[in-house]
Amino acid sequence: MSEERWLRTSVGGASADAITVRGLDLASELIGRVSFTELAFLLVRGRLPEPGETRLLDAILVSLADHGLTPTVLAARLTYTGAPESLQGAVAAGLLGAGSVFLGVVEDTARFLDAVLADAGVSAGEPELREAAARAVGRRLAAGERIPGLGHPVHKGADPRTARIYAIADETGLCGARLRLLRDVAEAHAAATGRALPINGAGVAGAALADLGFAAPLLRGFALLARTAGLLGHLAEEMNTPLGMPLWREVERRAADA
Amino acid sequence: MSEERWLRTSVGGASADAITVRGLDLASELIGRVSFTELAFLLVRGRLPEPGETRLLDAILVSLADHGLTPTVLAARLTYTGAPESLQGAVAAGLLGAGSVFLGVVEDTARFLDAVLADAGVSAGEPELREAAARAVGRRLAAGERIPGLGHPVHKGADPRTARIYAIADETGLCGARLRLLRDVAEAHAAATGRALPINGAGVAGAALADLGFAAPLLRGFALLARTAGLLGHLAEEMNTPLGMPLWREVERRAADA
Amino acid sequence: MSEERWLRTSVGGASADAITVRGLDLASELIGRVSFTELAFLLVRGRLPEPGETRLLDAILVSLADHGLTPTVLAARLTYTGAPESLQGAVAAGLLGAGSVFLGVVEDTARFLDAVLADAGVSAGEPELREAAARAVGRRLAAGERIPGLGHPVHKGADPRTARIYAIADETGLCGARLRLLRDVAEAHAAATGRALPINGAGVAGAALADLGFAAPLLRGFALLARTAGLLGHLAEEMNTPLGMPLWREVERRAADA
Amino acid sequence: MSEERWLRTSVGGASADAITVRGLDLASELIGRVSFTELAFLLVRGRLPEPGETRLLDAILVSLADHGLTPTVLAARLTYTGAPESLQGAVAAGLLGAGSVFLGVVEDTARFLDAVLADAGVSAGEPELREAAARAVGRRLAAGERIPGLGHPVHKGADPRTARIYAIADETGLCGARLRLLRDVAEAHAAATGRALPINGAGVAGAALADLGFAAPLLRGFALLARTAGLLGHLAEEMNTPLGMPLWREVERRAADA
Repeated sequence: MSEERWLRTSVGGASADAITVRGLDLASELIGRVSFTELAFLLVRGRLPEPGETRLLDAILVSLADHGLTPTVLAARLTYTGAPESLQGAVAAGLLGAGSVFLGVVEDTARFLDAVLADAGVSAGEPELREAAARAVGRRLAAGERIPGLGHPVHKGADPRTARIYAIADETGLCGARLRLLRDVAEAHAAATGRALPINGAGVAGAALADLGFAAPLLRGFALLARTAGLLGHLAEEMNTPLGMPLWREVERRAADA
Repeated sequence: MSEERWLRTSVGGASADAITVRGLDLASELIGRVSFTELAFLLVRGRLPEPGETRLLDAILVSLADHGLTPTVLAARLTYTGAPESLQGAVAAGLLGAGSVFLGVVEDTARFLDAVLADAGVSAGEPELREAAARAVGRRLAAGERIPGLGHPVHKGADPRTARIYAIADETGLCGARLRLLRDVAEAHAAATGRALPINGAGVAGAALADLGFAAPLLRGFALLARTAGLLGHLAEEMNTPLGMPLWREVERRAADA
Repeated sequence: MSEERWLRTSVGGASADAITVRGLDLASELIGRVSFTELAFLLVRGRLPEPGETRLLDAILVSLADHGLTPTVLAARLTYTGAPESLQGAVAAGLLGAGSVFLGVVEDTARFLDAVLADAGVSAGEPELREAAARAVGRRLAAGERIPGLGHPVHKGADPRTARIYAIADETGLCGARLRLLRDVAEAHAAATGRALPINGAGVAGAALADLGFAAPLLRGFALLARTAGLLGHLAEEMNTPLGMPLWREVERRAADA
Repeated sequence: MSEERWLRTSVGGASADAITVRGLDLASELIGRVSFTELAFLLVRGRLPEPGETRLLDAILVSLADHGLTPTVLAARLTYTGAPESLQGAVAAGLLGAGSVFLGVVEDTARFLDAVLADAGVSAGEPELREAAARAVGRRLAAGERIPGLGHPVHKGADPRTARIYAIADETGLCGARLRLLRDVAEAHAAATGRALPINGAGVAGAALADLGFAAPLLRGFALLARTAGLLGHLAEEMNTPLGMPLWREVERRAADA
């Protein structure tokens, strides 16, 4: 492969006098002109967001950043316990558990909705979309599978994040096909089972991010970005009020008693 | 330790009906009301930022997010090459190299400035601060050590990020003791060596974050948060225009020729 | 859940006077009595290996430990470049890319062979196994998919590791159903396509590990263990003869020229 | 830099027909001829070990592999809970906490002993070495610092690993200067404080690895290799008898009660 071609990156670069990000000059066009959220959108998408897109992406990131002492937060805090000199190690450890079980919902929901949209076809109106939703829900239930985007182990009634994300999506005119379809899916599930499972925060985030135009493999990336902020909060607390050592001592004490 | 005490976290939590972050209700007080940057400040600091603080933190995060095909970005893209199913692995790999060599400057600069401030004393005026800066620079130079915050392998003349960060710090009234002292340090170095080394982006970020009130061990955390966005941009590109495989093939080809 | 039950681990533990590993006393029964390979077998399996099992596991680990400047090795060395104070970060980064693309073959081959064995049925003799192999190969080829365990981008003729692993498996009487079936699969592929693809090192390792009795999700764990040793070799070299910085400079130089 | 020079690695490589490790042919000279431990020695050191060196390195690795439900093991198991599809993520998370607090002792002990040896001088006999040990211990105690290699939070009387490592070092004639000096250090500490702190397992491992000729920055690498085996054991158990989820539920339950 020729020398010139394999080093092509459009993400950014630095010369002696300038740093560019997706073709924009960092110093004159970005620092102090765009928010970090707008820069994240630019980095991934290649263009700056519209104000409504920024508002919705901010809402999504805020909704995903923290959920208390989750397994990944505990892993990060326990890692910090052993290696306080490497904050990047603790943050990395806190992200590594953000896989299929917890973050998978974000991507799985978007892919599920995309499959329903494909099944309904490009010219589908609301009735066709509802039918496609009902078919997809029926297939999953028949196979004994969960419906991505519905239900939550803690938020049994309604996930506190869902209504707010829908509200902001409506306010900004960005309540797209997947966000609307996710409501149809929830209704189809309730109709089929007699149980109303709430749309969960990860699912609404996945639908909203997909409606914002981000490709499915990237969706969990925004959840990782959000979680990094949550991890910094927990690690800041761990530096002053550690729970890693006490948790370990407790585990040891009870294992010894067992 | 009693059961109740060792699980105390003030960072956030979730009950059936509510998610809180540092005591604020996520749904009603945060989603759609604060930006992601404001939430990051809240998570680490325990309170929401003032508008000027948000503006400066946004500027700092934007300035640190990407610097092209750095070693950590290459590591992330190479990791994605081998494990595209685990975006969190690639992001984690991209953060793990953000240690002493590249990110250390952020923290080292803040600690260096804090030491100078301590040496000058609480009642020091500008002349005493300049003298303390000159003393500290002199000691480092005599020991053959670098001055944290000065110089850059690429940006030899002026680091494009520095002037913008100072401008925004001035605009927001947040040009604090460390940011001002860093200028004294640069002048002292130029006077002592006859060479003017520019204040680099990591150094001005460290001084600005410290002037924003964040403790030294946390400063690299904001750089990690910023870099996560940069990594998402590079991984988004890697998904479509990979350079991991071509880079590897090139390394192999040339090793075979050697 | 009751206190006593949730902390049950049989892997190991430590009291004031003793450390146990899978019920054996570390000091009196393990240190100086078993090799590290035998301990690894014990840790995962819960019993010490027979001499033949040790010999084969040693051969497998030795065969998988290093393959030159692979993407994961480059990622580890680039991570060390940025964070030399955190060897564990560099090792971790070198393992994170060991996912589906490079290590997946180990597990995929074992699962593929298990599926063929299941298809052939418990009372299958050699002819039935060959037919089942041919059916499975046919289905994969018809779907345009690769056959796990066959082919290698570098070792086009024969993978140097394969014959040795088979020889040691034969010597130790541990050439089990999967190792034998893998040969049938290679023959079926050659018959179906007219091209003889060699059995690759990761595939023979997966078959051999499965024949040693390890469950499919664990197989890549042994590859990770082997690679950790390879990474230590590369990082030892990186400490003295770095290629991370030169590689980065080269990438930057050529990106600037592009 | 010329093309040929920057890709020089002596660790290993692969051509179409052969894989080499430190110059030896993998298929004909290594697979089935050396153990994994011998290969690890070769990878790091560049030569195969003598039988006594193998025996001692095996003993060291066996001694360091597992110590029950430590913070890093908990982190690995919690990470697996969230991302069971990425075993490499869980292993990596389990290694990232192996930093200064837990593994630092291995390296710190070796560096401490090297400093005492340097202080005593090349021609020091036993009396001079004991005096240098006493001086070093005195300086640390006066500064309120711990003596690396002494004491253990669990093994208060004697660390079960220590006597065995010394015994094997004696058997193999590899009880070198640092292992001997570590005994002097322990005696000097007891004489100075009236309290006999035991030589701990990490300390004796560090001294033994250094006496085996490995450089200080590499020592924690062998501990990481050992721990990888321990982590595989714990992750194997986690696949069948998870404690990640129960631990998390317990933490949540008690946080809710608080």
